[in-house]
Amino acid sequence: MKSPSPPGGPQAVAVELPRAYRLLNHGPTVLVSSAHAGRANVMAAAWNMALDYTPAKVCVVIDKATLTRALVEASGEFVLNVPARSQAAAVLAAGQRSGRALPAGQDKFGLLGLVAEPSAAVAAPRVAGCLAWLECRVIDEPHNQQAYDLFIGEVLAAWADPRAFAQGRWLPGAEPSLHYIAGGSFFETGPALNLPTA
Amino acid sequence: MKSPSPPGGPQAVAVELPRAYRLLNHGPTVLVSSAHAGRANVMAAAWNMALDYTPAKVCVVIDKATLTRALVEASGEFVLNVPARSQAAAVLAAGQRSGRALPAGQDKFGLLGLVAEPSAAVAAPRVAGCLAWLECRVIDEPHNQQAYDLFIGEVLAAWADPRAFAQGRWLPGAEPSLHYIAGGSFFETGPALNLPTA
Repeated sequence: MKSPSPPGGPQAVAVELPRAYRLLNHGPTVLVSSAHAGRANVMAAAWNMALDYTPAKVCVVIDKATLTRALVEASGEFVLNVPARSQAAAVLAAGQRSGRALPAGQDKFGLLGLVAEPSAAVAAPRVAGCLAWLECRVIDEPHNQQAYDLFIGEVLAAWADPRAFAQGRWLPGAEPSLHYIAGGSFFETGPALNLPTA
Repeated sequence: MKSPSPPGGPQAVAVELPRAYRLLNHGPTVLVSSAHAGRANVMAAAWNMALDYTPAKVCVVIDKATLTRALVEASGEFVLNVPARSQAAAVLAAGQRSGRALPAGQDKFGLLGLVAEPSAAVAAPRVAGCLAWLECRVIDEPHNQQAYDLFIGEVLAAWADPRAFAQGRWLPGAEPSLHYIAGGSFFETGPALNLPTA
């Protein structure tokens, strides 16, 4: 850990790494944040999933045309941020604007009204105000990256806003995540359905 | 296509393959169905995502301990079925019971009260009553399969119940999908949030 301070203000708490997969289990659209050589970027990704419990791993698709791709390949790091419903407009814009098009000295955080915060375990920044954060280092798999734009990350640190995720699970009735449909539309995370287990 | 008949009764309609990714975009837990040499099985998988538009591809994690793993590796095929809220108990049980434990002549479809139907493009069956179906052939990637339990499939045919998915998108207010939390709990797909696009 580079820093003991959690993201998202004093309320964010560490998530045990073997339970980090639960932050993605319900299928949220994420923001992928990255940085290299003084340049930072953030993009939206509906194509993400958990891959393993321990060591905790995740998958995310990062297209070759994106600035994020260049930053992730150069730095070997990324953060998956699980945004809240209140951030939907920024998530949509993050998917529509490329960081490549911005003039020198500007980045998409500023453009989208998002705040970059220091991460604990990686140099890539985290996005303030999200519900959860997975700080990852790339497990280098050149064939997957080249043939499929598929990146595998090991989760080095995970955090959540305890108003939304506590004791290893998302809380019903809390601020919803976003689940991308198409165009300008998302589903919000809906009500919980609780069944007896065998 | 082995058969022109769509799954799920007369109401299911074909989904254009370049839009098949949208069936998984919102992060539903799926049922993975498979068959080989007269044996069929079905398991639940929260760890799935779209991987490409065209040719349409998907990812899913299939653990080495599962009967599904043996059937998918032997047949080179699987179907991702997007279950409806009304099927939640069967989805939960599919994740808790292994097809390996069943006596000869029985399968998990019967055990769980699910109905297997013929698919159109693959020999693996589809699960009746789901909201959508992606019929896939495995793109053989032995390293991913061995190191990560990660399977990549090309989508050969896709179908949806038009009461839930039409004109290339999920419909707000229709029967929800399931988004796994942990234990016996799922989130239902929630209300739609529609933002203006730039």
